[in-house]
Amino acid sequence: MKIETKTVQFTAPLYLESGRILEPYSICYETYGVLNADKSNVILICHALSGSHHAAGVYEGERKAGWWDGLIGEGKAIDTQKYFVISTNVIGSCFGSTSPMSPNYPSQEPYRLKFPVITIKDMVHAQMHLLSELGIYHLRAIVGGSMGGMQALQFGVDYPNLADDIISLASTYATRPWTIAFNKVAVEAIRRDPRFCHGNYEVGAFEEEGLDGLAIGRIAGHISYLSPDSMDDKFGRNYVNNDGLFELFGRYEVERYMEYNTNNFSRIFDPLSYLYIVKAINTFNLSRGYDSLHDAILRIKAKVHLISFSSDYLFFPSEMDHIANMMERNGQEYSYLPVESDYGHDAFLVELDKFESHIKDVLE
Amino acid sequence: MKIETKTVQFTAPLYLESGRILEPYSICYETYGVLNADKSNVILICHALSGSHHAAGVYEGERKAGWWDGLIGEGKAIDTQKYFVISTNVIGSCFGSTSPMSPNYPSQEPYRLKFPVITIKDMVHAQMHLLSELGIYHLRAIVGGSMGGMQALQFGVDYPNLADDIISLASTYATRPWTIAFNKVAVEAIRRDPRFCHGNYEVGAFEEEGLDGLAIGRIAGHISYLSPDSMDDKFGRNYVNNDGLFELFGRYEVERYMEYNTNNFSRIFDPLSYLYIVKAINTFNLSRGYDSLHDAILRIKAKVHLISFSSDYLFFPSEMDHIANMMERNGQEYSYLPVESDYGHDAFLVELDKFESHIKDVLE
Repeated sequence: MKIETKTVQFTAPLYLESGRILEPYSICYETYGVLNADKSNVILICHALSGSHHAAGVYEGERKAGWWDGLIGEGKAIDTQKYFVISTNVIGSCFGSTSPMSPNYPSQEPYRLKFPVITIKDMVHAQMHLLSELGIYHLRAIVGGSMGGMQALQFGVDYPNLADDIISLASTYATRPWTIAFNKVAVEAIRRDPRFCHGNYEVGAFEEEGLDGLAIGRIAGHISYLSPDSMDDKFGRNYVNNDGLFELFGRYEVERYMEYNTNNFSRIFDPLSYLYIVKAINTFNLSRGYDSLHDAILRIKAKVHLISFSSDYLFFPSEMDHIANMMERNGQEYSYLPVESDYGHDAFLVELDKFESHIKDVLE
Repeated sequence: MKIETKTVQFTAPLYLESGRILEPYSICYETYGVLNADKSNVILICHALSGSHHAAGVYEGERKAGWWDGLIGEGKAIDTQKYFVISTNVIGSCFGSTSPMSPNYPSQEPYRLKFPVITIKDMVHAQMHLLSELGIYHLRAIVGGSMGGMQALQFGVDYPNLADDIISLASTYATRPWTIAFNKVAVEAIRRDPRFCHGNYEVGAFEEEGLDGLAIGRIAGHISYLSPDSMDDKFGRNYVNNDGLFELFGRYEVERYMEYNTNNFSRIFDPLSYLYIVKAINTFNLSRGYDSLHDAILRIKAKVHLISFSSDYLFFPSEMDHIANMMERNGQEYSYLPVESDYGHDAFLVELDKFESHIKDVLE
């Protein structure tokens, strides 16, 4: 399929949870498949921290497919022959939606650190405006993993009549201090990097060299996306070269992996955007704005499908258990698939064969 | 008790595992209690990454006691009325033994990055020379946690007739890529910090301001010393101030904890020393130099006492299980105490009440 990124510009203000206003703002998105006549076949995909609206297909002239291409496409679990899939880019992302590097209207200068704090609730709120703009008032399903799974749950709580099914993978009901601490490495590493210049770096400053602070923070991220066992399998205690053992900076394979991936990432991801999205993850709490988590979850009318991964060291299965137990006690409609996996948090991106048939069943 | 730090200078070379030579070198140590007539009451204490030889008592004019003061002292589990306790400082440490900032004899200039890579085996080897210098050829016991527990096990393998009992807490038989990855955050954050100057910083350069790279790396360290549950208990999702939620750099309590502890640490710990000690931890592998882990462990003649902590996310209880199972199959004398704890890896420093009576029993 040919993939095109579309953007909707909104001139009406977005009222944020903080009380601040974002105006104007825009949202990037992609669609796959065809909208049917009664608009009953729409599936919304929500992305994670480092993701984008490019969830499926391959751009013309590129080789790398979207981040959930194995799951979304013709004949796949989310079948684009049946469904009209909308994949949106969150507010704050550096991949096209309004972000800290967008002009702070009416000035032409980027917001930078003047950009307002965005929450998961705000991201979801903005996406509601996108759906309205597209004339879509009902969703067959909302699907997302990690931060995308937070958005899926937040949609369910804030807009109970929107979707039939909500599928949330490798996610939680509220971010725990463990995860906030992992994010803290990135926050401090970026903040204290002299080339970050307190957010006043030149546009494109890191395209060549990358920002060390972001690369370093991302190492901590990658630890939390893997697991002790997955690292044993993937790297063991192998050295990159023979000098690994007795040279101070001789590297183990796990170290090479961390360097390679994080250096690349720091060339393509904007550090201010990273800080703002991490902040949205840190502040995620499904119960905020409601009397209790119980009250928040009780609002959900969609069928909720929770998928956890046994080796997830970022959002532990026990956090999904907690939501499932609550819905069970409330007599709400839900399913819960605890997947056995050695792939850690990343399993929602790589172990598709362990949950794709479940997603297919949910949608049928 | 009055505490004094002593130093032994060795002029004979220390032959390192790498093939390189350290010459001259010195080791700092402290002793508590009195050596008995037949020298049969000696207990050796080995410290962890951020520790030193100051394990017990309070220095004159100071308030903070040594890092295992709750365990070592008159009437305590390691009773200084009965035992003569020697606590040594590892080679490479910035707290007094020969380290990267020591003069690279015959030059008066510090070694810096010319310092040789030191391994756990080398640390233990150097301590053997210290014991010889003190005229001690037999130990009642060797006790250590984390990197100290590595040393205790390494003593047992390399010098099978040295000690009656070896007590190793919160440790492992070989460092896994998971832990190497946590250390990688510090390695990269230090290396890339411009003020680190590739190791050519001025002596005392970080006493006032601290080195950001070390502070950032230490955040990752602290994550691995705690656990998801201990962070829930200790910090929850509380903000430091009301601005925590909607200010980009508004902080959660877990973030304040990380900042406070790591900034302090980066003022007192030498970054080169940190790199070298972390390297020793990364390269720890009890089986190196032997045909297999089985062969290495089979050499041990001391009774081995393993203590693991259920919530240890740095060296998992399963790693201690592995050693225990091997010794069981070999018919070697050992005991294994798996402690239930929410304190994470740090439990070996804080949950003394859960294992001190066990240590007392072992020694009696």
